[in-house]
Amino acid sequence: MPTLSPLAPERFPELPEIAGLRISTAQAGVRYKDRTDVMLAVLDPGASVAGVFTRSATRSAPVLDCQAKLGGDGSAGAAILVNSGNSNAFTGRAGEASVARICASVAAACDVPGSRVFTSSTGVIGERLPDDRITAALDGLVAGLAPGGLPDAARAIMTTDTFPKGAVRTVDVAGETVTIAGIAKGSGMIAPDMATMLVYIFTDATIAQPLLQDMVAARADATFNCITVDSDTSTSDTLLMAATNVGPEVTERGGAFEDALGDLMLDLAHQVVRDGEGATKFIEVAVTGAASDADARKVAMSIANSPLVKTAIAGEDPNWGRIVMAVGKSGAAADRDQLSIRFGDVLVAEKGWVAESYTEEAGAAHMKGDEIEIDVDLGLGDGKATVWTCDLTHGYITINADYRS
Amino acid sequence: MPTLSPLAPERFPELPEIAGLRISTAQAGVRYKDRTDVMLAVLDPGASVAGVFTRSATRSAPVLDCQAKLGGDGSAGAAILVNSGNSNAFTGRAGEASVARICASVAAACDVPGSRVFTSSTGVIGERLPDDRITAALDGLVAGLAPGGLPDAARAIMTTDTFPKGAVRTVDVAGETVTIAGIAKGSGMIAPDMATMLVYIFTDATIAQPLLQDMVAARADATFNCITVDSDTSTSDTLLMAATNVGPEVTERGGAFEDALGDLMLDLAHQVVRDGEGATKFIEVAVTGAASDADARKVAMSIANSPLVKTAIAGEDPNWGRIVMAVGKSGAAADRDQLSIRFGDVLVAEKGWVAESYTEEAGAAHMKGDEIEIDVDLGLGDGKATVWTCDLTHGYITINADYRS
Repeated sequence: MPTLSPLAPERFPELPEIAGLRISTAQAGVRYKDRTDVMLAVLDPGASVAGVFTRSATRSAPVLDCQAKLGGDGSAGAAILVNSGNSNAFTGRAGEASVARICASVAAACDVPGSRVFTSSTGVIGERLPDDRITAALDGLVAGLAPGGLPDAARAIMTTDTFPKGAVRTVDVAGETVTIAGIAKGSGMIAPDMATMLVYIFTDATIAQPLLQDMVAARADATFNCITVDSDTSTSDTLLMAATNVGPEVTERGGAFEDALGDLMLDLAHQVVRDGEGATKFIEVAVTGAASDADARKVAMSIANSPLVKTAIAGEDPNWGRIVMAVGKSGAAADRDQLSIRFGDVLVAEKGWVAESYTEEAGAAHMKGDEIEIDVDLGLGDGKATVWTCDLTHGYITINADYRS
Repeated sequence: MPTLSPLAPERFPELPEIAGLRISTAQAGVRYKDRTDVMLAVLDPGASVAGVFTRSATRSAPVLDCQAKLGGDGSAGAAILVNSGNSNAFTGRAGEASVARICASVAAACDVPGSRVFTSSTGVIGERLPDDRITAALDGLVAGLAPGGLPDAARAIMTTDTFPKGAVRTVDVAGETVTIAGIAKGSGMIAPDMATMLVYIFTDATIAQPLLQDMVAARADATFNCITVDSDTSTSDTLLMAATNVGPEVTERGGAFEDALGDLMLDLAHQVVRDGEGATKFIEVAVTGAASDADARKVAMSIANSPLVKTAIAGEDPNWGRIVMAVGKSGAAADRDQLSIRFGDVLVAEKGWVAESYTEEAGAAHMKGDEIEIDVDLGLGDGKATVWTCDLTHGYITINADYRS
């Protein structure tokens, strides 16, 4: 177990039961010993399932299978099975056969159609998934299904994460309280061979699948798609959300439920960044005044992915010249003389040069904290974007280079 | 002086004199003490000057000035003045005034028009350039002008480079031998605040400026624009080439002269990679079978810039799963089942999975060398691209994070 991230939350939240959902975990021995490595979630008939996935051209067999199944008939229930230790990615036709065998076994054991079994795998790339170990654990998993299994599930899906990730929100819908609870794993595409961000969110609200899909996709764009640890993209990233459709119905985009969902997704996304490999600083990059939102995102991601910006922050160096560099290389429209940069409340640069009021001491003081805020205003238009990342440290190199499997 | 890169060439080449060119260096004390930090090159009347520059939106004042002057009348001679220690980048209007003062002083001291004085600055970003120290050194520089000054110039333009970079080629043009000699500095955008790749190439051949510009731009695309150390792009990158127009005339694209020029540029570009901060491995990434050359370049750069690929190589780990990941995230068309990967002569993966003949021992043996070759065939079309990079090590983090100016 690696050292706990210094940016870890103080405690794991109390994740409540969601009516219509039962969860179980087991030690299947896929790769790890003496820890749980499989979770099974079973949804009562009638649940809606939505999802968003990696856009990688080399996505894994489980991702391709999930994508093909989304939007199907939910009247007979559904199940989600996740294993850690092996990603079943780049395993050719054998990988697809493993997914098919797991889905068939889960369908039989849980009495749901195979077309409603969703699987995820996270861990080593390119090794055959020992799916027989997973199917051998199924009887035990089914026997252990219980409404309160989410916290254990958050631990079962970890690979090199240093802490389990969970979040919960409650919201009033039509006079009744509904709950949204989610778990996540991942620390970027960072651990030796063990890429992947996995996210599972459940609610007892009633939401038709197409509406749920729209909401999840829109909110993922503003949360999970706005974080970066090291600019590398997993072949297995998966977010699945299920509404058990037991409670009151959410019928429209943009209301309190969607806001609560977005807030929960941002919470989980930030937890992933806080567990970024070797991270010692949590960094928010907010860009305003761009010619378009797309340009703002380009600039924000250019800053957040710049090795020179990330190493400067690791060294607590208020090196604003590197921010200028990252703006300049982003490809977005920018004008040196319109640009301004702030570190938190400290105005650093404006009108094409360092600000008159800026002192190196003020910049350095902001960098000493473990929450860094970089604000860039391009002074050109109304485009804006905010992204989150962490610093680049010796810890990252140690984990990813000083390792030989 | 940092430790010499383990990838440094065995010796600095013997750089010959170029008829029509005189060079001098001096200790102006811009930032460094007890070393030369300014070079002056003076070209006799009639020289052609071509150049390519950073595409950064926040490029430095000297770069903007050079770009405005290219293509001007060369009948009255030209001069190039370069300082290390301060990049005069993001210094607002004051930076432009510094360039104007330097150009006026050089013009007067060397008897060339101010419109034919090209300057470059490399070093700290955002600090006012003490141009008075440079102009105060001018008399001594002019007095020291000599035909054999190129090797000294290669040292004067260094910032955190661990070795001076030079290359020379001779080629037959119309039955006579012409010489092409070049120097470069840079190790990516890597040293504390000290970004920049600078390249100066001289030949005694006769070449009209528009033809020289076309050649230089085309060959830069296949050489300097195909290297990456850390994906960060300087605000000051400058390549200037001067033909003194003393020797026989080159009248067409694509002949022996251009081939020799391209070969020299590749040599200098590779030297820059070999001096990449913290580099212990020189890496060639060759992509074939892409849907287009542009797609091939996307895939090659995605691999070459991936922190996970670069750290794996630093750890001598033949981690081909990370290559698959980098192909997948590149945005180029790719098909898992058509993809093949080789490390040098070792077939690693094909048909969507690890190759039957592959052994971890064979892959690990290739990774132990200090020249790594990654070949990816996408199996889709005729597009191809080759790029060069280095590994990502603790040395990079130490230089860029463990430093506080």
